[in-house]
Amino acid sequence: MQTDCFFCHLRTLEKQIKKFAPPEEVRKQLVGEFIDKYTGLQKQYNPYAAAAIHAMIRKYLKVEDPYELEKAESNRKAIEIVKEWRKILDQTSNKAYEAIKLALAANIIDFGPGHKFDIAIDIGKLQKQELAIDDSSSLFTSIKNKTKVLYLADNAGEIVFDKLFLEQIAYADITVAVRGFPVINDATMKDANIAGLQDVAKVIHNGNDAPSTLLDRCSAEFMNEYREADVIIAKGQGNFEGLMFDKDPRIYFALVAKCEVIANFIGIEKNQTALLNSRRVDKTKKA
Amino acid sequence: MQTDCFFCHLRTLEKQIKKFAPPEEVRKQLVGEFIDKYTGLQKQYNPYAAAAIHAMIRKYLKVEDPYELEKAESNRKAIEIVKEWRKILDQTSNKAYEAIKLALAANIIDFGPGHKFDIAIDIGKLQKQELAIDDSSSLFTSIKNKTKVLYLADNAGEIVFDKLFLEQIAYADITVAVRGFPVINDATMKDANIAGLQDVAKVIHNGNDAPSTLLDRCSAEFMNEYREADVIIAKGQGNFEGLMFDKDPRIYFALVAKCEVIANFIGIEKNQTALLNSRRVDKTKKA
Repeated sequence: MQTDCFFCHLRTLEKQIKKFAPPEEVRKQLVGEFIDKYTGLQKQYNPYAAAAIHAMIRKYLKVEDPYELEKAESNRKAIEIVKEWRKILDQTSNKAYEAIKLALAANIIDFGPGHKFDIAIDIGKLQKQELAIDDSSSLFTSIKNKTKVLYLADNAGEIVFDKLFLEQIAYADITVAVRGFPVINDATMKDANIAGLQDVAKVIHNGNDAPSTLLDRCSAEFMNEYREADVIIAKGQGNFEGLMFDKDPRIYFALVAKCEVIANFIGIEKNQTALLNSRRVDKTKKA
Repeated sequence: MQTDCFFCHLRTLEKQIKKFAPPEEVRKQLVGEFIDKYTGLQKQYNPYAAAAIHAMIRKYLKVEDPYELEKAESNRKAIEIVKEWRKILDQTSNKAYEAIKLALAANIIDFGPGHKFDIAIDIGKLQKQELAIDDSSSLFTSIKNKTKVLYLADNAGEIVFDKLFLEQIAYADITVAVRGFPVINDATMKDANIAGLQDVAKVIHNGNDAPSTLLDRCSAEFMNEYREADVIIAKGQGNFEGLMFDKDPRIYFALVAKCEVIANFIGIEKNQTALLNSRRVDKTKKA
């Protein structure tokens, strides 16, 4: 973990403390546990540290799903605005490409630290942007009739747009995996149901509570799907941080670079979108 | 230290790391020392913790005065705008009162965490505000010809307006004390020279590097002046936090409440100004 990430994790902690306003005694315990565990946490990759920190937040703030309201609102808003986008998409010739650009743009829906956004405006802006890295032709070449595609979802709301993209590659054999438990605003089975993902794909969860896909912590059911997949599409920074060191050419990362640390690591600018094959990631670099 | 203060100290740390952009290795050492010392720091009052944290910043970032440029700019800007205020003051009848309100408003000049301001605009706004607590009549009654007044200065720039106030009570025997070493944007002897404080008062420094007045750490020379003073005017939150538990009726605190913690403690709103005698402070409360 870089020190930039340390400050970012702390912003998460502070935001949740402000939101749930527990007594000072509880705040002290929560911050105390963070401090006690920090030396261990800072040696870990961010998604492991994030999972630990969110577990502390749930424990001390006594709330199972701290972002429940934000997720409900994201889903509602996304379902509302996706209709317009569906019409726009109907009029374009390169539907699958425009739809994955849209699903990528929808990755802006994020309630992590330091992210402020207006769903409708920002998705529109991002969708117009060129991808900073674009491995879409390689991706689309890989996806044929019955290709086993495993789609690792990221956030609630965003999955409404993921669904719109998956409709365009409905000829493949698609499984979507969401998180096993609530963490930040990441999509769970509940959100998948609201978005109606079951209409276009088999939907599973990964059995884990990290805001990422941590293969050493995922369920056996998930790992079966993972092993059998021909193509893996991993949405968002969380999934990127969990899988970026795996030299697995099946993986395509699709994300908005939301912080300098990840943008620098990939070699793009903050707030740019990228669709990149795992082979592009420089495994020698430190994150 | 409350947990709100913990997050605030960390913002200071992050801001200085961003500003001086040291290598990641140095950042890790700085954050590591903060984490190591946190358990001890959080049992202390804020000015002691702040002094320790700023000492770490100077040590790891290898910079003696991290706010040198901000202070020079504050002094320059204050000297520029004080001329207009001197004209306005010349036309008012209650000069000493209007001048201390102005010196109080100038306390907004602060480069601590989370403070954004425009000197000219904000001083104007604050000067128009009513004081939320106003012990000025008791203060002015105490100050007579030859009364020994010890004025504990706070920030660079601000002291230009302190001087304007001190001119109004030039009939007293005034000593101004600045910090002994650079810390945040607090005024030191260098700033006192730039503001020309020597023209209206004897100027000393307190021999210590805390952004406050910590009596157990101040120099013998300073403590002599402190003991001999009839009236003590302590500017800013830093001095308040250092002296608020002393039951010393000679002290008048003059400050803008810059955070919720201190505003709540005093019983005013954040961003309100107050001139309050030490007797008003509820010593039973915890800060």
